[in-house]
Amino acid sequence: MGRLGREIAIVGVGMTPFGRSKKDQLEMFGEAAMDAINGSGLKPKDIEALFLGNAVGDLSEGQTVIASHAIAEIGLLGKAATRVEGACAAGTMAIIMGVMAIASGRYDIVLAAGTERQTVSGTAFATRIMNTGPHHFYEEPTGLTFPGIFAMMAHYYAKKYDVPLGELKDAMAKVAIKNHKNGAKNPKCQFPSITDLMEKRKAKAKQEGKPVPTWADEMDFLHDSKVNMMIAQPLQLFDCCPISDGAAAVVLAPVDIARKLTDKPVIIAGFGQGAAGGIITQRDFTRLIARESSAKQAYDMAGLTPKDIDVCELHDCFTIAEIVATEGLGFFDFGEGYKAVERGDTVMGGKIPINPSGGLKAKGHPVGATGVAQAYEITNQLRGNCGERQVEGAKVGMTDTMGGPFASVANIIFKRGW
Amino acid sequence: MGRLGREIAIVGVGMTPFGRSKKDQLEMFGEAAMDAINGSGLKPKDIEALFLGNAVGDLSEGQTVIASHAIAEIGLLGKAATRVEGACAAGTMAIIMGVMAIASGRYDIVLAAGTERQTVSGTAFATRIMNTGPHHFYEEPTGLTFPGIFAMMAHYYAKKYDVPLGELKDAMAKVAIKNHKNGAKNPKCQFPSITDLMEKRKAKAKQEGKPVPTWADEMDFLHDSKVNMMIAQPLQLFDCCPISDGAAAVVLAPVDIARKLTDKPVIIAGFGQGAAGGIITQRDFTRLIARESSAKQAYDMAGLTPKDIDVCELHDCFTIAEIVATEGLGFFDFGEGYKAVERGDTVMGGKIPINPSGGLKAKGHPVGATGVAQAYEITNQLRGNCGERQVEGAKVGMTDTMGGPFASVANIIFKRGW
Repeated sequence: MGRLGREIAIVGVGMTPFGRSKKDQLEMFGEAAMDAINGSGLKPKDIEALFLGNAVGDLSEGQTVIASHAIAEIGLLGKAATRVEGACAAGTMAIIMGVMAIASGRYDIVLAAGTERQTVSGTAFATRIMNTGPHHFYEEPTGLTFPGIFAMMAHYYAKKYDVPLGELKDAMAKVAIKNHKNGAKNPKCQFPSITDLMEKRKAKAKQEGKPVPTWADEMDFLHDSKVNMMIAQPLQLFDCCPISDGAAAVVLAPVDIARKLTDKPVIIAGFGQGAAGGIITQRDFTRLIARESSAKQAYDMAGLTPKDIDVCELHDCFTIAEIVATEGLGFFDFGEGYKAVERGDTVMGGKIPINPSGGLKAKGHPVGATGVAQAYEITNQLRGNCGERQVEGAKVGMTDTMGGPFASVANIIFKRGW
Repeated sequence: MGRLGREIAIVGVGMTPFGRSKKDQLEMFGEAAMDAINGSGLKPKDIEALFLGNAVGDLSEGQTVIASHAIAEIGLLGKAATRVEGACAAGTMAIIMGVMAIASGRYDIVLAAGTERQTVSGTAFATRIMNTGPHHFYEEPTGLTFPGIFAMMAHYYAKKYDVPLGELKDAMAKVAIKNHKNGAKNPKCQFPSITDLMEKRKAKAKQEGKPVPTWADEMDFLHDSKVNMMIAQPLQLFDCCPISDGAAAVVLAPVDIARKLTDKPVIIAGFGQGAAGGIITQRDFTRLIARESSAKQAYDMAGLTPKDIDVCELHDCFTIAEIVATEGLGFFDFGEGYKAVERGDTVMGGKIPINPSGGLKAKGHPVGATGVAQAYEITNQLRGNCGERQVEGAKVGMTDTMGGPFASVANIIFKRGW
């Protein structure tokens, strides 16, 4: 695998709030796209091509060929528009396609975006839709859904590394507490902190004249199976990311043009992409083939190592997935990720802050938009725009997105271009 | 829009028969992919990335993240795999993505493919699936399906150019006769010639002791509304392409590598891609915004004009669509395409042979595979491998694929690399 013919940078980013939206996928795309274009110093007509990550819009809203409708949504009739689908990794793939399209010499200015509306389906149908990710013949008919698949990952992890399940569950709960705490400082985040949730419930009980719960702290709250109900043992409600609506967008340009447009271009230092079937093609649920291939590609291309990463947004669709990802990306040794959580290595101010945005867990996970929203966060982190959730002095950042059950992983490494 | 940093060529092509298949999308992909790889002088492990066109597999087979399952199908765990969706133009877009990915410098050897299984759904559900192409809010609820949309195109054409509808219908029938006649010489084609169909029906009637029909010729047969029933006035059954299953694949490499692998590399001389919403964003149903943008891009990039094209595979999803496409691609003046059919300009040996493979109309139209199958045909035409349907001395060929109702068009111009 070779280096790119041109170095590419992000010149503008945009994003809708994540959560439950009354806008459809195209309207949310339009909001994020115009936000990104307006912030880039460019006009819509300067966009030469769109790459749009969208995972399940055909199933949720009955909309295929969405990229064509999206380009019309922002008034650019006649421009190239391509939908990229790799389940939950679709957004990151759309950015990678955009980067390669510019590096090829064909385009200078590309819009890469992701959009998804999943609350419209309701939870039951959203679950059915998500379950089109496993292999349609060998995996889907087993009845396993995503929580069950990631529960298997947790059991595999506990068994392989001989971790008592209760200890692993506590580490997983700490991932949730951290990501909700980070997310509470992000105005685009779907959910508040767990402390806030706890206090709200206490206040509500008091107001209704019911007995006020006596949770001592967040961990105590998460140990309460009445609020944090079991989903798929050992995963409880707060181990799972939500169903969400949202969109995000980035404007890409070659570095020479980017420097004229902004004094803070964020350079795509490296990227990787790996795919490996679904569940049954894995050899080890704690060491995903797709991620290990993808991360190596990204580090090699950037000429960097995990030690160089100052901040990372990664795929915490379930809390166990965050622990496994921190190992797969090389931040911690295999089997050490849960100890790193215990030590506080991944909190703000820790060795490697993970998911300052709140991650999928708290910020929300409109699947096709997620990878682009990660790029939005890392761009803002490197630019020092993140206010209360700023990772001080962050110069190099990384994103990680996994699509389907272990199927497809895409990574991008970003660095300051100033 | 700039030129590519590297010139790219096709080094191998593969394709399943089109028609009704018992194989699923992944199995058909595997067959076409191995056919292409085996023909390229490469081994599967040489493939660095896959771009897979698939339009509606999530809706027909319940399979998203199909590119990841596809890369596993051919045993390449860990490689990059991206699904590209642009409705019926998905396959051509996958090739374009593959070309840009190599031109970027990132990869040397890329597999671009398309696969689709549509007969599995049955006609009624296949129609519902296809109808996710129109805008989900402004167009779908009107109840218009594809035959109705293209019937509107035919009426618009007849009115705009003041052509008696009967005259236009006869030109459309001649498109069908031509494409079935061409397809009869293609072993991968779904349907036989109309003459053969006619003779079969006569033989069957005779065998069953029923009155033998007295059709004088193919045109007489197509005028018989008992066999060529009305679908959406003025479109009759034989004006419509079928629902099909199939897959196709091409192996792409930079020209310097390609020359070492084959003495007949087919060079990607130019490509274009345009999108323009769906139906209501068009100004004129006979001059599609997406095609005029896309074709201009492709000609400009190749430094060629319509006069330089020796053979063309284009998007004849309906017979009127072929007439309109021959004008949009610049082979005939606007409003002259139906006269060109009458003159025989588009038959084998004519001024510009159109759809020697049989086109979507006769060869079949497994939507995500169609653009790649067009590239398969043009590659074989330029290499002189087409036997009875060979366009003699073809040096430059073109493909044209339209996705969604007028939504997205992608074109590629190919030339001999020897």
